[in-house]
Amino acid sequence: MHTAVFGLGSMGYGVAQSILKAGDTTYGFDVMSSQVEKFQSEGGSTESLIDAAGILDCVIVVVLNAEQTESVLFGEQGVVPNLKPGCVVIACATVSPEFARDMESRCKKHGVHYLDAPISGGSVKAAQGELSVLASGTGDAFNAARPALDAMAATVFELGKEAGAGSAMKSVNQLLAGVHIAAMAEALTFGITQGVKPEQFLEVISQCAGSSWMLENRAPHIVEGDYTPHSAVNIWLKDLGIVLDIASKAEFDAPVTTAALQQFTKASEQGFGLEDDAAVAKVYARDAGIKLPGE
Amino acid sequence: MHTAVFGLGSMGYGVAQSILKAGDTTYGFDVMSSQVEKFQSEGGSTESLIDAAGILDCVIVVVLNAEQTESVLFGEQGVVPNLKPGCVVIACATVSPEFARDMESRCKKHGVHYLDAPISGGSVKAAQGELSVLASGTGDAFNAARPALDAMAATVFELGKEAGAGSAMKSVNQLLAGVHIAAMAEALTFGITQGVKPEQFLEVISQCAGSSWMLENRAPHIVEGDYTPHSAVNIWLKDLGIVLDIASKAEFDAPVTTAALQQFTKASEQGFGLEDDAAVAKVYARDAGIKLPGE
Repeated sequence: MHTAVFGLGSMGYGVAQSILKAGDTTYGFDVMSSQVEKFQSEGGSTESLIDAAGILDCVIVVVLNAEQTESVLFGEQGVVPNLKPGCVVIACATVSPEFARDMESRCKKHGVHYLDAPISGGSVKAAQGELSVLASGTGDAFNAARPALDAMAATVFELGKEAGAGSAMKSVNQLLAGVHIAAMAEALTFGITQGVKPEQFLEVISQCAGSSWMLENRAPHIVEGDYTPHSAVNIWLKDLGIVLDIASKAEFDAPVTTAALQQFTKASEQGFGLEDDAAVAKVYARDAGIKLPGE
Repeated sequence: MHTAVFGLGSMGYGVAQSILKAGDTTYGFDVMSSQVEKFQSEGGSTESLIDAAGILDCVIVVVLNAEQTESVLFGEQGVVPNLKPGCVVIACATVSPEFARDMESRCKKHGVHYLDAPISGGSVKAAQGELSVLASGTGDAFNAARPALDAMAATVFELGKEAGAGSAMKSVNQLLAGVHIAAMAEALTFGITQGVKPEQFLEVISQCAGSSWMLENRAPHIVEGDYTPHSAVNIWLKDLGIVLDIASKAEFDAPVTTAALQQFTKASEQGFGLEDDAAVAKVYARDAGIKLPGE
């Protein structure tokens, strides 16, 4: 099997490593040449895209958004027109269902399968080949993608036979995940104003009805005062922005999501955009004049 | 032991049953005489409050709010002035930390211990004696309350030596629980506009980073179209109202909570106040012109 991974950021690099480990001839491409060289030094193939495109069985696109996905697939040096028929594109970025359907249709014209396959789980699980994939596409797309999915994912949700269903579920998940991070930050800092210590907040609330997956995962970052970006504040400007774009087109009013996005936007404006998303708590702390652990 | 339970609603009735099961002489009081008679027919003592007050070891107050708690303890027929010294009041309503400290101080003047002890877990766990209690108070208050806590609770969080800490943690938990219900409703209905079926939402998201305790507990009500009120919409008008009152006094801005409360308020205004709190989804469904299961 010949597989190319486009995008060697925190998620894509892990995906590329997983594919390599599974024994495929694996090509890594990124705008940052240092990432490409690093991957080649670990065993990635050194051929150029022009030379490799025609023999690829699978193309995995792990970039930031729809714009970058379109550029990789159909831009000036877009790969799809050079792929052989029967090749599959596994598209992992968070995009709108409409965009995913458009990409599927354009790939089809070249005889290329398209799997709408947003991923979830973070960079650690990406490196371990244990992502969750929210996938939809034709049976042929699933069949062609199966070896790569087996290598990169612990769980593959098969959500339908058309592109769009995977992206729809991903946007639903991102809505909740983003709101839950902001709500955790709001509750933790509110607690501080009432004498609740952050470590006590984490210990008690994680065992109560107020708990969430995100609370258990992110509140420890605030308790430890460690804002190393496992997932950055700015990711939520992008992802909740996509959610609200889709909602707006459907004339769907999402006031809780809107409130959460405002807090992430403030965090970015206050200079925390590249910190871990738990740093949204700093917005609340500044507003309320309280200190977080480590400050 | 002689124990009185004030408030025989969905939570208080279960607490009274648990105390009775543990073998105490148990008195149940409520403004609704039918509830009192029902409890007496199950083994509750039939003596009047006037006759019983002086021999009580423990008074458990499971009413709706601070106003009712104050009325039970210090109103016209308030029980505290008639209690014997060393008796303990276990106050379970969601109230402000400030109110809890005031009650503790007023009880102390009568030689009565006060345990600030908001409860969590719902009516089913109340009836099973398996509540979670977020408690704070003096060592003497905990000692005097211990037999009752053992009978009514699976978990007792001991949060400090002064009243107020329990109520502070409870308000933090309610902030999150209320926001998570509204966020679940927002995400589930947003999903419907994108072709995500409610049962698929529940199956997939409960395994993803967007999950929460409340999502796993309440989304099934929407999937089944069953709005039997385990916890009613109107409870959140009260509890999120208390949270925002406390926040306002601390000059703490809670925009995500504010957005969630607005949705519960709309639900109440649209006539769903006495339905299960998952009925907040009906507000979103009406706004977006979509149908929920069972509609």
